[in-house]
Amino acid sequence: MDFTPSARVQSLLEPVQKLVREQLLPLEPLLLAHQYSELMVEIDKVRRVVKQQGLWAPHLPASVGGMGLSLLEFAQLSQCLGYSPLGHLAFGCQAPDAGNAELLLHAGSDAQKDRYLQPLALGEIRSCFAMTERHLAGSNPTLMESRAELDGEHWLINAHKWFTTAAQGAEFAIVMAKTDADAPKHKQASMFLVPMDTQGVSRVRNISVMGSSGHGPFSHAEMKFEQVRVPKTALIGERGQGFALAQSRLGPGRIHHCMRWLGLAERALHQTRDYLSRRMVSAELSLAQQPVAQAMLARAWAQYESARWLVLHTAWQVDQQNFTDAKAAISMIKFQTAQMLQQVVDMAVQLHGGLGVTDDTVLAFIYREERAARIYDGPDEVHQLSAAKQLIRQGMA
Amino acid sequence: MDFTPSARVQSLLEPVQKLVREQLLPLEPLLLAHQYSELMVEIDKVRRVVKQQGLWAPHLPASVGGMGLSLLEFAQLSQCLGYSPLGHLAFGCQAPDAGNAELLLHAGSDAQKDRYLQPLALGEIRSCFAMTERHLAGSNPTLMESRAELDGEHWLINAHKWFTTAAQGAEFAIVMAKTDADAPKHKQASMFLVPMDTQGVSRVRNISVMGSSGHGPFSHAEMKFEQVRVPKTALIGERGQGFALAQSRLGPGRIHHCMRWLGLAERALHQTRDYLSRRMVSAELSLAQQPVAQAMLARAWAQYESARWLVLHTAWQVDQQNFTDAKAAISMIKFQTAQMLQQVVDMAVQLHGGLGVTDDTVLAFIYREERAARIYDGPDEVHQLSAAKQLIRQGMA
Amino acid sequence: MDFTPSARVQSLLEPVQKLVREQLLPLEPLLLAHQYSELMVEIDKVRRVVKQQGLWAPHLPASVGGMGLSLLEFAQLSQCLGYSPLGHLAFGCQAPDAGNAELLLHAGSDAQKDRYLQPLALGEIRSCFAMTERHLAGSNPTLMESRAELDGEHWLINAHKWFTTAAQGAEFAIVMAKTDADAPKHKQASMFLVPMDTQGVSRVRNISVMGSSGHGPFSHAEMKFEQVRVPKTALIGERGQGFALAQSRLGPGRIHHCMRWLGLAERALHQTRDYLSRRMVSAELSLAQQPVAQAMLARAWAQYESARWLVLHTAWQVDQQNFTDAKAAISMIKFQTAQMLQQVVDMAVQLHGGLGVTDDTVLAFIYREERAARIYDGPDEVHQLSAAKQLIRQGMA
Amino acid sequence: MDFTPSARVQSLLEPVQKLVREQLLPLEPLLLAHQYSELMVEIDKVRRVVKQQGLWAPHLPASVGGMGLSLLEFAQLSQCLGYSPLGHLAFGCQAPDAGNAELLLHAGSDAQKDRYLQPLALGEIRSCFAMTERHLAGSNPTLMESRAELDGEHWLINAHKWFTTAAQGAEFAIVMAKTDADAPKHKQASMFLVPMDTQGVSRVRNISVMGSSGHGPFSHAEMKFEQVRVPKTALIGERGQGFALAQSRLGPGRIHHCMRWLGLAERALHQTRDYLSRRMVSAELSLAQQPVAQAMLARAWAQYESARWLVLHTAWQVDQQNFTDAKAAISMIKFQTAQMLQQVVDMAVQLHGGLGVTDDTVLAFIYREERAARIYDGPDEVHQLSAAKQLIRQGMA
Repeated sequence: MDFTPSARVQSLLEPVQKLVREQLLPLEPLLLAHQYSELMVEIDKVRRVVKQQGLWAPHLPASVGGMGLSLLEFAQLSQCLGYSPLGHLAFGCQAPDAGNAELLLHAGSDAQKDRYLQPLALGEIRSCFAMTERHLAGSNPTLMESRAELDGEHWLINAHKWFTTAAQGAEFAIVMAKTDADAPKHKQASMFLVPMDTQGVSRVRNISVMGSSGHGPFSHAEMKFEQVRVPKTALIGERGQGFALAQSRLGPGRIHHCMRWLGLAERALHQTRDYLSRRMVSAELSLAQQPVAQAMLARAWAQYESARWLVLHTAWQVDQQNFTDAKAAISMIKFQTAQMLQQVVDMAVQLHGGLGVTDDTVLAFIYREERAARIYDGPDEVHQLSAAKQLIRQGMA
Repeated sequence: MDFTPSARVQSLLEPVQKLVREQLLPLEPLLLAHQYSELMVEIDKVRRVVKQQGLWAPHLPASVGGMGLSLLEFAQLSQCLGYSPLGHLAFGCQAPDAGNAELLLHAGSDAQKDRYLQPLALGEIRSCFAMTERHLAGSNPTLMESRAELDGEHWLINAHKWFTTAAQGAEFAIVMAKTDADAPKHKQASMFLVPMDTQGVSRVRNISVMGSSGHGPFSHAEMKFEQVRVPKTALIGERGQGFALAQSRLGPGRIHHCMRWLGLAERALHQTRDYLSRRMVSAELSLAQQPVAQAMLARAWAQYESARWLVLHTAWQVDQQNFTDAKAAISMIKFQTAQMLQQVVDMAVQLHGGLGVTDDTVLAFIYREERAARIYDGPDEVHQLSAAKQLIRQGMA
Repeated sequence: MDFTPSARVQSLLEPVQKLVREQLLPLEPLLLAHQYSELMVEIDKVRRVVKQQGLWAPHLPASVGGMGLSLLEFAQLSQCLGYSPLGHLAFGCQAPDAGNAELLLHAGSDAQKDRYLQPLALGEIRSCFAMTERHLAGSNPTLMESRAELDGEHWLINAHKWFTTAAQGAEFAIVMAKTDADAPKHKQASMFLVPMDTQGVSRVRNISVMGSSGHGPFSHAEMKFEQVRVPKTALIGERGQGFALAQSRLGPGRIHHCMRWLGLAERALHQTRDYLSRRMVSAELSLAQQPVAQAMLARAWAQYESARWLVLHTAWQVDQQNFTDAKAAISMIKFQTAQMLQQVVDMAVQLHGGLGVTDDTVLAFIYREERAARIYDGPDEVHQLSAAKQLIRQGMA
Repeated sequence: MDFTPSARVQSLLEPVQKLVREQLLPLEPLLLAHQYSELMVEIDKVRRVVKQQGLWAPHLPASVGGMGLSLLEFAQLSQCLGYSPLGHLAFGCQAPDAGNAELLLHAGSDAQKDRYLQPLALGEIRSCFAMTERHLAGSNPTLMESRAELDGEHWLINAHKWFTTAAQGAEFAIVMAKTDADAPKHKQASMFLVPMDTQGVSRVRNISVMGSSGHGPFSHAEMKFEQVRVPKTALIGERGQGFALAQSRLGPGRIHHCMRWLGLAERALHQTRDYLSRRMVSAELSLAQQPVAQAMLARAWAQYESARWLVLHTAWQVDQQNFTDAKAAISMIKFQTAQMLQQVVDMAVQLHGGLGVTDDTVLAFIYREERAARIYDGPDEVHQLSAAKQLIRQGMA
């Protein structure tokens, strides 16, 4: 269980941290002011620097232009990136593109890889992942209403999705739909690669989330797929493999999120620590000298540190073993880290007082944006039941 | 300790509830979509109905066109109004106008009452309250940087304020500034009534709060008062009385907020209860039948009920005694009710899943808008220390 | 909703409080040192004073020597008694005798009343209630293994019970056993009045609870009933009515517990408040001036106050309506008040430091003795599910 | 940051675990029944086996008969031992002897080592540590009232101590007393080695803690040292070095406690997991299948895992650096792990229902015995302020 950053990661941490702090933090006000097009122009500039420095796509193998890090290595880097909500986007490893690239890498056909994976990995195009349905409790895939039927050499897809993150401006969607409603529970659905300009594909709206409809990579769409016709080769992997692929995509995805949340939590802690020293509550005393504020900071920091080592251990465990053996651990870090983040950010907002709820700092953005952390990729409650079942089963072994 | 709604309140609850649910809930999507001008047009229509039904300004005495309710009576009505974030605005008792009207009523000169209180009470004009400063820890008024100096027959005011709620479109501001920096701590400041069109008054911006700059009554401004000259008669109450007036204004204000929060919490509970029954997690089972969801709902509901009776008792106590004797109780309901609201809303968001973070329901609005509840009018931590000191003092008596 | 203590309760509160504080608090060290026989001698002296002052058995009607208070009146008195763990015992309203007396009063035969209720009500004998079984999850009565069979004019009882509180020294037990295993779920069991000296009745042990086996009224026994033969007249109420009677006994029992817990919490708060002022942390400063301690005290106090009004409202509701309509409310106060008590006591122990875990104060006793409050008469989790189901059902009405 | 158990620890874990589970768990009922002398006889038997297997005194260097493990190695072993409250005692590393031995090892004179350290390390004698005073807030050492004065070739000690753990039966005490009341705050006190049979040394009582006065190693005494005369050579280290030595003793002590608590928490989790599977709530369903119980187990387990990696990292950090650099981390694990333990045990008690509060399992013992974990060696609140100050200072560096 050696969590020491590898020599390679050691050498990367400083330049990555420098880029994040010097080039990305100054762009955050554009994000907070919803000035998305100005923001994307600036992000693109940073992306060029990132590529020049050989820091692009740390999660992908070298074969597709990535850095080829292990999960533990990426974990350590990812916390650095998560320090800013713009980090992953600037370094080419943002959701849902990161997961989609991994998916195509492992299950895509050669043609899919040539046509879509290469430009996706290079950040030349974006993608989206259309799985969630409004009336589909994600914990029960049999409720899925989307359908794909074979019609000669084509699949005919009808689906109504929502929370399709970053659909606006995406080149293609990966769409999950039932192909075999009578098959066993986890073999009913399949995945399809659907170009967004295919006839019948429409973006109904960007859903307003926490007060904003967002834009481009910062948006979540409601999507309709009406009589959408794609060739047989649009199938990703095998027919009926949809849920298996989704699970294999979500496993690393959850760890990626945890890593990112650690970065956000660290940011909130640093910012609060610094603010406490600056904020005077009398002519002589700063907030940093107030015991109640001190206690709040220390409790939050200890929660952060606790979550951090647990996440690193889980990443290490996955590297050594595999996702299946680490299933209970992944469920535990998912809910534990998400809750930690929200408690840390809540503390940070509270200690910033009125300033904390304004968009003059990044805290209010994290507060509202990451409320969903306890919901997406499986709500806390589902992961708790899942972890418990694993733990009880292991106890009986 | 009779908390039974009076015959008068009994007769009011039903029509008020009917108006809120039938006429205000349908307007909330305009609020959630930031369509403020369309919203204000609709609110004005409802206001006319409210006035026709004699339900206007429940917090004010009949002499200025209000309903003349006791604090306990208003508490009971106010929870009804709080069921929608639009309730208090539609019934003419929204912050900061409600507090400003009470202030003018008790401390305003006859001229101030004639010129400003009457139209304010009738909802013909709006007002704002410019006390908070960015670098002023509210718990320590001696840090206030705003200054007013006598210059012949005028006061010359220089101040930089923020979180001046509803400044945009207000007819006048009540401005707090130091008039006697060498006086004892709580006698250094005074209050002034300053028309917003006075030379030197400028609204720097509507501060972006939780992702939105808002508009009109739904905004919080940064304000500058530069060499603003107002006549001596602009003083409210007496010179040096500023903090005393602010405290007397905040006392009922905190209870009003608690009442409103109870309504919001009730709304979140009702909406969650109903959603649980509708949301299917399998072909046969709804979320309402899931034990974990049940336990979350019951815990939140019990917190709500606990806070409710405590607030009602405090309102009753103030009616029987006064604000000073109820100081510890008011501090306790302030932090206890604000925390209850946030826990209830957090539960509601969580059980709504993805839907909970969208603006397709009102929950995400409450979640972000009322994060400030634990901060404004004194953060939790300050009220806890204040309550403890009272309790310890009482114990030594 | 008038919670004002009635004139009668007003006149009782002072003498009761005086007796509790002057005569019972000094006896607590005997309890903490497990000196039960010395304690009982002293308690008996206090009981005589209580009777002389006409304060005996506040929960019982005058017809059997009680004070004939309403539930709300008893609630207000009961908090006074709960201030000491010895209060209810000294005033003749301790569990399980209080519940047993109410049971006999409502469902006992005339013969049972004459022979057992009268001396029980007067405190001349004690009783116990044998329902709980080690392998019986109380939430599912069909699991009960105890059996009673008709054998001519007698019932033959075989049962293995535990947590039979106060069995040691009791004159009789009320025993629950299945009489009709094939009847509908809630009609399978019946209750029997079994004198403790009946052949076949044996007390296996006083169970060691939280480190002590206790004695007499301060004990919880494991009991065996082996081929115990009682006459047909030993049946309480009707055959198959056991669960209905148990529920009707538990309803008020839960409210009684809540009232008592409020008294214990008040005691812990008072003691902590006083200790903070005495405990010096430097030559000049007491703990009462430490912000972190202040915040802890205030938060706990606010929880206590919140629970208090909720309990009083529930008692009032039961007085006005009945237990069935107040079912959700009773479940909510059961888990809410028990948790409040434990949080208050935990805070009190923590702020007392090392002293808090010793038996030099009563706090450690409450800490360990009342850990069971969240378990007995239905664990929190069961009451949460039960309350949620009621609330959801009401929402659909 | 390699937390992998070393080859040596790997080879030790299995035999240690075997001894703990096979030989110590069966002895726990004697502890729970307060049968201390029977227990000590049995413990002594196990100690012989421990020594035969070369597992004695894992925390001490080989030079004094220990195993010479690093802190991280001992951490990993210590969790194994902590699985039973008897583990550390049976393996010769129980408080306060472990800390006293380390103290003598580092600061004792050769004579002290020969006469006291050797038999102490071998478990032939026991010792105690007399620092705490009833009126001494440990966070402020200047309040210490104990005094030692030079009187010719002797020190004359007057002290009134309490919470002197394991004083009953100890061969010697290490006593802290002020020798230089006018020296700088942290140089006022010194430490003395005082044989318990010295004239003037008296054990006033074993303090009753959580309901029991305990015995021998399971007791905490109130001690008086009245005109106790010891030779100059009784001084440990240098005059005025008392607080420095106490701190150097407490640093590892806190980590030792955290390791032990991890073992206790693991025990509670295992026991609960197993109980859930056995406990039927209906004919077909066990508690292990109840979602609310599952969620409680998973949340507690995740807290345990989080604390575990944080403690291991801190032990590793101390091994690599030193206690001073790890000061914030040690404070954080102290309060974080203690709270985790109490939350885990509370969950375990709750899910065991009535059984959980009895002494038929070890849970109730842990519940009451380790309530003090959040108090001794510095209460949570003190460690939170201390950690915050370190973190803020580091942030300004």
